[in-house]
Amino acid sequence: MSSSSDRHLLLALQIANGYGAQPGAWRMPGTDPSSYTDMDVFDRYARAAERGKIQLIFLADTPVLDVDLEREAPHHAIDPLLVLTSMARATKRIGLVATSSTTLNEPFTIARQFKALDVASHGRAGWNAVPTSHPAAAANYGIVLPSREEKYERAHEVVQIVQALWGSWGKNAWVRDVENRRFADMSQIRPVNLQGRYVASAGPLPIPPSEQGQPVIFQAGGGGNGLEMAGRYASGVYANPFTIEEGRAHREALRTAAERAGRNPDEVKLFAGFMPSVASSKRAALDRRLKLDESVDTHQRVRYLGSMIGLDLSPAQLDQPITEQQHSAARANPGDPRAPRALELAREGWTLRDVLAHGVIDYHPVVPGTASDIADHMQEWFDAGACDGFSVAIDVYADGIDTFVDEVVPVLQERGLFHEDYAGITLRDHLGAPAQYGQDPRLP
Amino acid sequence: MSSSSDRHLLLALQIANGYGAQPGAWRMPGTDPSSYTDMDVFDRYARAAERGKIQLIFLADTPVLDVDLEREAPHHAIDPLLVLTSMARATKRIGLVATSSTTLNEPFTIARQFKALDVASHGRAGWNAVPTSHPAAAANYGIVLPSREEKYERAHEVVQIVQALWGSWGKNAWVRDVENRRFADMSQIRPVNLQGRYVASAGPLPIPPSEQGQPVIFQAGGGGNGLEMAGRYASGVYANPFTIEEGRAHREALRTAAERAGRNPDEVKLFAGFMPSVASSKRAALDRRLKLDESVDTHQRVRYLGSMIGLDLSPAQLDQPITEQQHSAARANPGDPRAPRALELAREGWTLRDVLAHGVIDYHPVVPGTASDIADHMQEWFDAGACDGFSVAIDVYADGIDTFVDEVVPVLQERGLFHEDYAGITLRDHLGAPAQYGQDPRLP
Repeated sequence: MSSSSDRHLLLALQIANGYGAQPGAWRMPGTDPSSYTDMDVFDRYARAAERGKIQLIFLADTPVLDVDLEREAPHHAIDPLLVLTSMARATKRIGLVATSSTTLNEPFTIARQFKALDVASHGRAGWNAVPTSHPAAAANYGIVLPSREEKYERAHEVVQIVQALWGSWGKNAWVRDVENRRFADMSQIRPVNLQGRYVASAGPLPIPPSEQGQPVIFQAGGGGNGLEMAGRYASGVYANPFTIEEGRAHREALRTAAERAGRNPDEVKLFAGFMPSVASSKRAALDRRLKLDESVDTHQRVRYLGSMIGLDLSPAQLDQPITEQQHSAARANPGDPRAPRALELAREGWTLRDVLAHGVIDYHPVVPGTASDIADHMQEWFDAGACDGFSVAIDVYADGIDTFVDEVVPVLQERGLFHEDYAGITLRDHLGAPAQYGQDPRLP
Repeated sequence: MSSSSDRHLLLALQIANGYGAQPGAWRMPGTDPSSYTDMDVFDRYARAAERGKIQLIFLADTPVLDVDLEREAPHHAIDPLLVLTSMARATKRIGLVATSSTTLNEPFTIARQFKALDVASHGRAGWNAVPTSHPAAAANYGIVLPSREEKYERAHEVVQIVQALWGSWGKNAWVRDVENRRFADMSQIRPVNLQGRYVASAGPLPIPPSEQGQPVIFQAGGGGNGLEMAGRYASGVYANPFTIEEGRAHREALRTAAERAGRNPDEVKLFAGFMPSVASSKRAALDRRLKLDESVDTHQRVRYLGSMIGLDLSPAQLDQPITEQQHSAARANPGDPRAPRALELAREGWTLRDVLAHGVIDYHPVVPGTASDIADHMQEWFDAGACDGFSVAIDVYADGIDTFVDEVVPVLQERGLFHEDYAGITLRDHLGAPAQYGQDPRLP
């Protein structure tokens, strides 16, 4: 196989709680069950990702405890900005991106902390600007979740004020002229004085530009509101298409939204969420996932699988494939984009347990297989225009990140799909996004 | 000299903008003028302080740009929590404390970030909980500063909710039992559900206890409101007495406030702000300070000095001492606690320039001199019960921190005033504060 394009795909590595994307990751052999609070572990992952020339690390976040900790680890990091700061100190080139809610935070806090990360990392920070949709997260901040419309109105205000604060200093404002005893050129440092309906800030922010000017904006919300935000502000979008068709549709809509906002659509990259399980064979990869799923309620999953493919499945059938009669009766549920893939696997004759092990009801497309299988999937999606890159959720970080870096990345590089090394030093360099200075893009 | 007590004094090192406590620090030889954004520099300072067995590093903060950057560096760090995270990764034992406003932040944000720093540093974090009094800082958050009364009402609510969130997990809640597939004991993890007049939070916070349970509370506000807060919650207080008498009065009032709150007064330590300039002789120390002051408006300072000592002083007299006639006419302004010291120096025959170089109008007591002179000052204050330790503001960090650690600390140790090494591993260990777990101190 060879790539049909000169374009390179981009890679984001999702690193959440320190264990892995699968609920059982925290208790796998080789995983330190204390990884959740151990920055040495996060630093090791970041260095491995950088060894693989991955463009950026992404920490999704919702400020809430929303899992049953009896069996699972928390979904998110102890604090994304603190974890990224530790990673920034342990690495030199990889980008560092985290979610921070536009619903629950004040723009000055977001502006200050992400810009601080940006200068501390020498221009490698990015902010995933998303409204919060979890009522319990809002309750942690003492509020009731506003309407979707209000959340997006506030989100626009927050992003605009944050960007204005980031642009408080002109490109050459920080003169540091020891001889003439001049620390900065105050004529290039301006207040913001923006008053919105929901938020406001006077500024200026007391932080000079970084090597990339200011942090990169990412976006992850869905629907028309999310597209509009992404089109206006974002250089990267995290999306969760389950099929190539969904990916293409989302990417086209995103590019249209960027054009509508007067931007070059190539400035907005879509990262498709994707969950590889890499092993020496497809069977070994499925067994790896089965081991991870051991404490999951399989009975409930079998019934859910039945609803996806239009059959009344019983847990008693877990270790058998569907019968010939079921084969004929089965229908993919049109309301679930994952259903066709589930039906395809069931008809191929996998046991129900193995169909589930393929990840058909996971929140990202799952590919269990060899490095070459994984690369095939990525190439197919990328060549079809379903994405500009992938947001990779590794099942178990302890060994999975190294395996991805040492086995999948070289295959992608051999096929000409992925860069051999970082060409620049900033996150904007890695994404091909122009540097940004000042409050008005037309000014220096 | 020998210490009159078995007690050891405590040391906090103030590290603000990366340059030093004096406005001219950023342009001194040996200082990298880019230190403000360079975490390598902050890490080097933190390691030097740890080499000196200093109990903690303290980053004061007000989220505002309130200096003329043409001549001075910003007063505060790019972001205290991010800088402390970097320092946490570069050190093993030293405590890490920062200010975060109880007026401008939501309790969930404070609770999460300081607890994250606490677990990431293995139990070394502290939070200086203070209301904000700077109107421009409030404007950065889109609000008008509330009344003093409202600010303290909100501060009480914020501290109580933050402490409740920190106590969400019982001491042994994080079981991490791989064999039995049990990540945590949910019966030991409880919501908070606190609703105040200004702030609220549901909880729980998704972060387990650190090696010290939860972060240490510090306080720095003055007046009756500040004392009451400190008496109820704080293990350490940053104070700015200018004289031994002021220090003793503050410390006694603080101990009384702690007793009123039902606590052992020994659990609250007063750190007196203090600005040493260490050199091989007193003259050399004064010259060091003169060099730092070079770009300051000396004319204005001479007139201000005149108002402190009841004389109409002219800049023309800058390099002369006061005359005999002035000697008799001079009176210390009773409204300025620094005035008696200024008058004493003027009467000793120093030129006005040198009187000013003694730091008589600085915001902390200043001692320019040899390591032994500095230690004498500290011993005198400590033995007189004016403080439990010092919050040390070094004039120029680039060489001043090493000099303090290598020259002053050994003198204090020889005199039995300062510990030889850290006895424990957490900030609570260093302060003699008991570990704290859970929402109710009576529960495990």
